[in-house]
Amino acid sequence: MTIKKIAIIMGSDSDYPVVKNAGTILTELGLPFITRVMSAHRTPELVEAFASGARDEGFGVIIAAAGKAAHLAGVIAAHTSLPVIGIPIKSSAFGGLDALLSTVQMPKGVPVATVTVDGAENAALLAAQILAVQDQAIAEKLSALRLQMKEDAIAKDKEYACHTFGGE
Amino acid sequence: MTIKKIAIIMGSDSDYPVVKNAGTILTELGLPFITRVMSAHRTPELVEAFASGARDEGFGVIIAAAGKAAHLAGVIAAHTSLPVIGIPIKSSAFGGLDALLSTVQMPKGVPVATVTVDGAENAALLAAQILAVQDQAIAEKLSALRLQMKEDAIAKDKEYACHTFGGE
Amino acid sequence: MTIKKIAIIMGSDSDYPVVKNAGTILTELGLPFITRVMSAHRTPELVEAFASGARDEGFGVIIAAAGKAAHLAGVIAAHTSLPVIGIPIKSSAFGGLDALLSTVQMPKGVPVATVTVDGAENAALLAAQILAVQDQAIAEKLSALRLQMKEDAIAKDKEYACHTFGGE
Amino acid sequence: MTIKKIAIIMGSDSDYPVVKNAGTILTELGLPFITRVMSAHRTPELVEAFASGARDEGFGVIIAAAGKAAHLAGVIAAHTSLPVIGIPIKSSAFGGLDALLSTVQMPKGVPVATVTVDGAENAALLAAQILAVQDQAIAEKLSALRLQMKEDAIAKDKEYACHTFGGE
Amino acid sequence: MTIKKIAIIMGSDSDYPVVKNAGTILTELGLPFITRVMSAHRTPELVEAFASGARDEGFGVIIAAAGKAAHLAGVIAAHTSLPVIGIPIKSSAFGGLDALLSTVQMPKGVPVATVTVDGAENAALLAAQILAVQDQAIAEKLSALRLQMKEDAIAKDKEYACHTFGGE
Amino acid sequence: MTIKKIAIIMGSDSDYPVVKNAGTILTELGLPFITRVMSAHRTPELVEAFASGARDEGFGVIIAAAGKAAHLAGVIAAHTSLPVIGIPIKSSAFGGLDALLSTVQMPKGVPVATVTVDGAENAALLAAQILAVQDQAIAEKLSALRLQMKEDAIAKDKEYACHTFGGE
Amino acid sequence: MTIKKIAIIMGSDSDYPVVKNAGTILTELGLPFITRVMSAHRTPELVEAFASGARDEGFGVIIAAAGKAAHLAGVIAAHTSLPVIGIPIKSSAFGGLDALLSTVQMPKGVPVATVTVDGAENAALLAAQILAVQDQAIAEKLSALRLQMKEDAIAKDKEYACHTFGGE
Amino acid sequence: MTIKKIAIIMGSDSDYPVVKNAGTILTELGLPFITRVMSAHRTPELVEAFASGARDEGFGVIIAAAGKAAHLAGVIAAHTSLPVIGIPIKSSAFGGLDALLSTVQMPKGVPVATVTVDGAENAALLAAQILAVQDQAIAEKLSALRLQMKEDAIAKDKEYACHTFGGE
Repeated sequence: MTIKKIAIIMGSDSDYPVVKNAGTILTELGLPFITRVMSAHRTPELVEAFASGARDEGFGVIIAAAGKAAHLAGVIAAHTSLPVIGIPIKSSAFGGLDALLSTVQMPKGVPVATVTVDGAENAALLAAQILAVQDQAIAEKLSALRLQMKEDAIAKDKEYACHTFGGE
Repeated sequence: MTIKKIAIIMGSDSDYPVVKNAGTILTELGLPFITRVMSAHRTPELVEAFASGARDEGFGVIIAAAGKAAHLAGVIAAHTSLPVIGIPIKSSAFGGLDALLSTVQMPKGVPVATVTVDGAENAALLAAQILAVQDQAIAEKLSALRLQMKEDAIAKDKEYACHTFGGE
Repeated sequence: MTIKKIAIIMGSDSDYPVVKNAGTILTELGLPFITRVMSAHRTPELVEAFASGARDEGFGVIIAAAGKAAHLAGVIAAHTSLPVIGIPIKSSAFGGLDALLSTVQMPKGVPVATVTVDGAENAALLAAQILAVQDQAIAEKLSALRLQMKEDAIAKDKEYACHTFGGE
Repeated sequence: MTIKKIAIIMGSDSDYPVVKNAGTILTELGLPFITRVMSAHRTPELVEAFASGARDEGFGVIIAAAGKAAHLAGVIAAHTSLPVIGIPIKSSAFGGLDALLSTVQMPKGVPVATVTVDGAENAALLAAQILAVQDQAIAEKLSALRLQMKEDAIAKDKEYACHTFGGE
Repeated sequence: MTIKKIAIIMGSDSDYPVVKNAGTILTELGLPFITRVMSAHRTPELVEAFASGARDEGFGVIIAAAGKAAHLAGVIAAHTSLPVIGIPIKSSAFGGLDALLSTVQMPKGVPVATVTVDGAENAALLAAQILAVQDQAIAEKLSALRLQMKEDAIAKDKEYACHTFGGE
Repeated sequence: MTIKKIAIIMGSDSDYPVVKNAGTILTELGLPFITRVMSAHRTPELVEAFASGARDEGFGVIIAAAGKAAHLAGVIAAHTSLPVIGIPIKSSAFGGLDALLSTVQMPKGVPVATVTVDGAENAALLAAQILAVQDQAIAEKLSALRLQMKEDAIAKDKEYACHTFGGE
Repeated sequence: MTIKKIAIIMGSDSDYPVVKNAGTILTELGLPFITRVMSAHRTPELVEAFASGARDEGFGVIIAAAGKAAHLAGVIAAHTSLPVIGIPIKSSAFGGLDALLSTVQMPKGVPVATVTVDGAENAALLAAQILAVQDQAIAEKLSALRLQMKEDAIAKDKEYACHTFGGE
Repeated sequence: MTIKKIAIIMGSDSDYPVVKNAGTILTELGLPFITRVMSAHRTPELVEAFASGARDEGFGVIIAAAGKAAHLAGVIAAHTSLPVIGIPIKSSAFGGLDALLSTVQMPKGVPVATVTVDGAENAALLAAQILAVQDQAIAEKLSALRLQMKEDAIAKDKEYACHTFGGE
């Protein structure tokens, strides 16, 4: 069983400061990925060509990040049966509500797996979880990461825990 | 100067009860139009083929109606330089806010002329206004329609106006 | 490679009228699934026990449906590294916005793959897409389903398409 | 066929930093336009006089930008049958939702073609698309602009595309 | 000191079921009023003519009710220095939020006194309060009405009050 | 230690269909309570007198239910140092968002313990939890109720659980 | 006829930077006013005492500014039959939507005349308009102010108007 | 009667700048409390263990602060019959609306006492009010604090009150 690749598609290069966090996680997990800038509105042919051929080119999951009327994830999902993860990007108006609703409210038949607004890390982890369904090695890396996260949280807990104030 | 045709595209046939009101107005104005059901997610190739060829096939304006993550108008606009009018369709959740934001919040470079939620009549009138820019005959029909609307409103005003109550 | 099972968890049996549509799709695709009623707030131990053991018991994806302060999907995701799909259920107030935000806005580290409000069909399809990443047979069933959907849409298009009105 | 002029109306000079981007696009396209500051509430007579006479003075499209209870586009639309494009301007409260709803939710009979919040560029492009319906030269300029936009996007794509990380 | 008249303006006769409640209150208070149907978009000349002349014709307060992109109150306020009371009317989408924001978010210099969504009674009472500032007789009627309201509320309280349950 | 009484205050008798569910729970728990109709706006003196004297009259918790600009809970909280529980009541516009924000967004110094929109049962349970802090008997009744709830949920789970479909 | 005084009440001194603009306008119009800091929650007795006695002490209008769960205007309105103008103050969360809904959504019987979020100038102007109903001198001052505003707007228009670009 | 302890739980140490204000109030009131960092998603076992044992370990109230899909308070409430106070923390998107709805919209049977967004002071005061139900000493401290608050407000009032401007 070959490891499937992950594609991270941004609607605009202005999404990169958020999206790069997905790359950091995937690199940490040792998962192969590519990064592309493709727009559902400015380069729809690129999007369509990429999405249509992605399964055959060895991709397993596609992550799509877009803001405002965020159509990117939905358009990709219309051209592939691979799972598509949508990251709604917050832009100046509406705190990302426009991108969230445009990404998640997909019609019957064409799902987009939507994560937290600006949630690039979660998109990467979800992609890894999807690949880990049939891949024990990735599952173990995810467990290790989760454990690390837990330990960090416990350390924080110890740092903030203080003895009871006042008298008893 | 040939009269350009208007295309009315629905994302789903469930939008028809709203969308048919656009057809009624266009018929009243005597403007040529066609009605299609095409989905940005279920039949993206149809949408793309139609949008790309619309100008050459004699269309002047495209009206697109869709609900939820309403990508239809935006995807059409990505494939044509004709003006695209978006009708956000209200569905059960969010009172149409999802469709409104998905339709209107288009990125720089690819506008969609968005009208009232469920505003099929306004979409048809806007299409006629666009064709009327260079067509005096349509402009006159629109003025007549506006005048009729005004007269109806004046009649309503007379109906409800009542003499001052109380003493002076 | 054994086919992984899918779990459909409802927060309350009142979610069943929506959630059963997920079962219909999975049955149509011939994918093994179970249906459970477990609440993050009323039976948290059940949720935790199920989620913790799900991977070992042969599950590949968990679908969780909940309304209002919909914590179910998030709590499940906290106890497993399997992909968790969240269906926000619309209840009487806020049109499902509460459930959507409670489901999708997960913190860094613990993603939930959120679908359309009341989008049980899309949840089922996403689950199938996830299993299809490494299973060509499911991928082909999904393609067939997509094709059927496309053909239905084309039939609708033919039904509504009408000849150009007016003169040219 | 004379080229119709475009009018850009601001409700307040404080809208200028946004609105000037419409002028930049129109200048780039070589389309004639004027810029005015007129308020539906402070100088309603100016608005009415301008709107009523706009068609006769050779205007083809009117762009109106306003914030908060943005009545400007609607009031203009009430006095002309020219297409009116509304730009909702984001002000400090509500991220522009007030202006968006005030602009787009026009009653039956009087449409406003609403674009992205703060979307002055899109308003200018939509105006050009409207004039291009019967003017091949403008249509070609728009196609060239779209092509340029596409090429810029492709360049960005190349810049960000990277080879697959990790092993295969 | 002559009693000033109150004008109740509806944007559409479909607002009458709500607006008539204002008339009921004014009749109960014995205050002179008229009812008109005038639209900021369909009959703007009527609105302007009425608003400009209202003070001279003996009106003291103008109540304006409108839904959706409710411009009516604002347009009236632009043509008079009389106090203008706006009633946002709930229509099918957005629960009246569009009408509320369009009515209340007026720019600096042109206030609209906005009341509860669909709050025709409150609009009538506010109009009476305004006239009562210099008119002791109306002030006394308002106090009597308030007292009646209080007595009704006290009666309801008695009806629902029950003795303490359980043991102490 | 005497059992403290609970007061359930409705802003209007139209809130009774929701509020009575609080009474049902308290009766089930055997906790003493009274029901009143008092309005922050129509009978403010009643509200103030009641709230000011409540602690001395043996009340331990006050539940206040109100819709729209729900000031009731806040006004009560301003006149007592007893814990005040607010139930935002959904009315026709905004799905209860107005009542929720009016109830929960209290300024620094005067908290209101806000529960689910229309959440009368939860208000009653929270009141019981507050009394149970120092009363083991009530704590045990709450545990029994929670256990019952859990058992009902488990029964529902058994009802819906079905054997795995498809082959393995 | 004595000129009635205007009271400007802030819920907190942190509202002063917004509220002082009301004072500037009233000073400009030469209208007598006082400024107070009174809280519906921290000093309810002050609020009640002031509101109850305001008419007898020669006040004609009360302006109340508050943020978050802005109960101030409503509580004042419950204790007087004078017109009460509410200014919703924007605080950090929700862009003032909480204060707007808490101020405007008053129950039947107790209106608050709500103005723009942070709209202190409009509150002052509305207060002046109310006093001007029976006072020609104030009405003339308001007309002069409106005229000045109009002239400023016309000057801005001239500043921004530019000659038509491009060729004709 | 032993004084019960209060637990302040943060979902993340990034909530500390807000949450510490709760500690300040509790210290001022001389009430014993502890501070912990525990996450419903990263350290669910800690949360569950703490919540389950809290009553037996002498806690009387649990305060839980979390942002985004704020599940923390709800998950704690699922494991204890102690009153749980939720502080929704504002994060970058949605101004805290996500955390508010996730915290307050709890299902029937498991209440969370929700306070103002970022309202750590109010959470602390509510906790003290709950303990004060059976503890006269705390009740008196709360009254003293309320009195101090009142005096501060009265001082502010005196500072801002100014003599009537203009003539009478």
